[in-house]
Amino acid sequence: MSQSPVLLAGQWRAADASSIFHADNPATGEKLPAEFPVSTWADCDAALNAATEAAAVLRILPPEQIARFLTRYAERIEARKAELVEAAHAETALPKAPRLGEVELPRTTNQLRQAAAAALDGSWAMPVIDAKLNIRSMLAPLGPVLVFGPNNFPYAYNGVAGGDFAAAIAAGNPVIAKAHPCHPNTTRLLAEEAFAAVGETGLPAATVQMIYHIAPEDGLRLVADKRLGAVGFTGSRAAGLKLKAAADAVGKPIYLELSSLNPVMILPGALAERGEKVVEEFTGSCLMANGQFCTSPGLTILFAGDAAEKFIAGVKAKLESAAPTALLSSGVAKSLSASVKILSDAGAELVTGGSPLGGNRFANTLLRVSGDGFLAAAEKLQTEAFGNASLAVVVRDAAQAAEVLSHLEGNLTGGIYSDTTGKDDALYEKLSPLLRLRVGRLLNDKMPTGVAVTPAMNHGGPFPATGHPGFTAVGIPAAMRRFTMLQCFDNVRPHRLPAVLRDKN
Amino acid sequence: MSQSPVLLAGQWRAADASSIFHADNPATGEKLPAEFPVSTWADCDAALNAATEAAAVLRILPPEQIARFLTRYAERIEARKAELVEAAHAETALPKAPRLGEVELPRTTNQLRQAAAAALDGSWAMPVIDAKLNIRSMLAPLGPVLVFGPNNFPYAYNGVAGGDFAAAIAAGNPVIAKAHPCHPNTTRLLAEEAFAAVGETGLPAATVQMIYHIAPEDGLRLVADKRLGAVGFTGSRAAGLKLKAAADAVGKPIYLELSSLNPVMILPGALAERGEKVVEEFTGSCLMANGQFCTSPGLTILFAGDAAEKFIAGVKAKLESAAPTALLSSGVAKSLSASVKILSDAGAELVTGGSPLGGNRFANTLLRVSGDGFLAAAEKLQTEAFGNASLAVVVRDAAQAAEVLSHLEGNLTGGIYSDTTGKDDALYEKLSPLLRLRVGRLLNDKMPTGVAVTPAMNHGGPFPATGHPGFTAVGIPAAMRRFTMLQCFDNVRPHRLPAVLRDKN
Repeated sequence: MSQSPVLLAGQWRAADASSIFHADNPATGEKLPAEFPVSTWADCDAALNAATEAAAVLRILPPEQIARFLTRYAERIEARKAELVEAAHAETALPKAPRLGEVELPRTTNQLRQAAAAALDGSWAMPVIDAKLNIRSMLAPLGPVLVFGPNNFPYAYNGVAGGDFAAAIAAGNPVIAKAHPCHPNTTRLLAEEAFAAVGETGLPAATVQMIYHIAPEDGLRLVADKRLGAVGFTGSRAAGLKLKAAADAVGKPIYLELSSLNPVMILPGALAERGEKVVEEFTGSCLMANGQFCTSPGLTILFAGDAAEKFIAGVKAKLESAAPTALLSSGVAKSLSASVKILSDAGAELVTGGSPLGGNRFANTLLRVSGDGFLAAAEKLQTEAFGNASLAVVVRDAAQAAEVLSHLEGNLTGGIYSDTTGKDDALYEKLSPLLRLRVGRLLNDKMPTGVAVTPAMNHGGPFPATGHPGFTAVGIPAAMRRFTMLQCFDNVRPHRLPAVLRDKN
Repeated sequence: MSQSPVLLAGQWRAADASSIFHADNPATGEKLPAEFPVSTWADCDAALNAATEAAAVLRILPPEQIARFLTRYAERIEARKAELVEAAHAETALPKAPRLGEVELPRTTNQLRQAAAAALDGSWAMPVIDAKLNIRSMLAPLGPVLVFGPNNFPYAYNGVAGGDFAAAIAAGNPVIAKAHPCHPNTTRLLAEEAFAAVGETGLPAATVQMIYHIAPEDGLRLVADKRLGAVGFTGSRAAGLKLKAAADAVGKPIYLELSSLNPVMILPGALAERGEKVVEEFTGSCLMANGQFCTSPGLTILFAGDAAEKFIAGVKAKLESAAPTALLSSGVAKSLSASVKILSDAGAELVTGGSPLGGNRFANTLLRVSGDGFLAAAEKLQTEAFGNASLAVVVRDAAQAAEVLSHLEGNLTGGIYSDTTGKDDALYEKLSPLLRLRVGRLLNDKMPTGVAVTPAMNHGGPFPATGHPGFTAVGIPAAMRRFTMLQCFDNVRPHRLPAVLRDKN
């Protein structure tokens, strides 16, 4: 079988490849037939040159045209849904329904349509006009955006279709997508539809480019390249931090979504009032997509006592009665084993699970540790165990809960369950300010999985959940502002101003 | 004479000092009498602890109280104007009038009052409410902000009174100010008024803290400390990049204003139409404050020909007829000599000046280089010569002008002068898009010095002018957003929401 072509400079062409790779079917462990190239620097260089030219055209196109592209692309994805669902299922083992076909694919096209609406609306640019001084400013496209998609959302975070892609394009930037090597075929199908929509709507041909895989050193070189405007990355902390260092060294904006434990604190009143319901919600959230969400609750904080023991026993029973399915890849399975070992070695005790089951499956896992134990090894015990494993921290009292919260790293989300009649309010008032500063999204009485695509969403948070606490990856138009620069026009003659900055506005 | 105390944890107290230093009077070269301490890590640590406590109180204070503080502080600065002007004049050699008393001090109090108005107004927080999903978000205070002030604006950028200070406080964060060691006494006077205003308006006592000087390694440790929310730095590229690396490594937001050449391109029609006027504007801008503005025009691009030669000769004559005064410090004088040597060694030819004159003065300097010469050493020839020196690049034609522009680093500003009847319009259309991407503020027919304090201002720009092209250091409320985090509230019970996120809004 011949290698799949890459999408570069307005054409599907053979990669300049250093080697080839195959994706695996994680459910069967079998190598999938299609061959994909690992691109060399020559492909990266060609992408950067073509993107630079496309950027110059895109930044002066009418927003209507960009919106038409995003809408048309959404329609084309819907038209090819059956094939996309088959491809993603084969490459990720995620269920075809409801997950891939009924949840993630519609979310993806919804994001593209919200981005289209925001491009048309134009308020994302935050124009400010001082007519008296004749000084005006707005946010403007930053230039080519490189998007690295993660393994866990083959559509909604895909480099060539997901949230970063939609935000970057809607703000007027071309995208160079780096596929996740676990789902290259899904990415190829999406890129085909994106490129067809580019052609239909008359955008510059290199508005969308896509490569499958590159060597790590080329990734570092790419993010630091002068031709690039910004980078969006969703993935592992280790890879993300290396890219961040390379980008930071040359002052390149890089927006990262890295690991997150999404701590959930369950106050005593909530357990007393509705312990079984909370067990159900917690277990459901932990097992959603086998725990392979960036917002999966990896850490829960309980107050020592009978109710906490009952909660743990309840979760244990539920975890043991649910049958784990294959994880996203053999890499995820290995990494989960390694993380659970780090947690155990650092003092966490296994309540249930803890072992691989073969076939890229891992036993549903709960660990526990006392507040003292957590504080003695707080860094190690915040190792992300990406997958179906979670750690319960059982604290002695409110003071120790506060101490645990103040040792938390930055997270995307954090939640607090409390009694509905006010019995936990004093505890909430004491503890919630500490949690608030460590998370991007604070929840009440609700598990963190499920990221609504609304302008009010923050899918971001303090380091190391992301690289900057001021930005979000989900939520239009805020997510678009990541891919812009602030441009001021001082005494610029009226006919030379961008339309949105002219006096009539 | 005893050491001046530092302002830490709500009191003026003796520093934990490793050594002492004095400021110089740059006009006379004499050491000024007051002794100031170089603080050890113990002082930094105390400041961080006190700021953490103050932050928790400040973030829930009514905005009216923060506004009252900023207003009261402005009034107190005005009441102590005579003493502040004497102090700053002695430490910087900047003229008492108009510069210090009539321009910079009013600008500083204006900034504080604009910040007060923005704190009251509240729209800086950009609240977004999705009442249907009960998801809400806003920008919220980030935590203690460390502000490093520069040497060149003893009031308007001072760590304890300037734009970063005002923006950080207005957004609800305490400030730890690091004085610039060239004007410690001015900073002490300002800090006294700030602290008195803190007391009068009932803010937490550690809302404002100030230390004079620290060892470089303590600076790196400070910016990386977990207790700190963010950093504002205005100063040299070398120092700024070291702090940036330390902050980036731990994902700490750091906002830098570093070097900038502020290129001005003068198109042929403008010279033909009003060459003498442009000579006058350019020279005036170059010599303003002895060229010690971050927006001083350090690079001008001319098109080869008689008009360019006449422009250069005109500037030469004006520079030679103006008497240079003392630079801000002996350090600035030394650094200017060194930079001019780098430019000369890289192929620039001296048109006039180029030598120190004694008494911390430097001859008004113009250098020139051809477009070919510039392109052969583009990096070295973009060395900032902070002070009264500027480089003219004489390009062959439009193509070479485009090439020169595409080799420019990021700058705060860039300007284009063109004929008023449209003769330069084709050149403008070709060249301005290239300049636009490399600068934060694009000017027409106007020199870059003079940064109006208006919401439409962008005093920022692409790296290495700053660390991120999306933020501005001047212009309320945009400047405040640097010191915030995005906080989302998902399903949070109504009475627990910040007031601005409740349904009635």
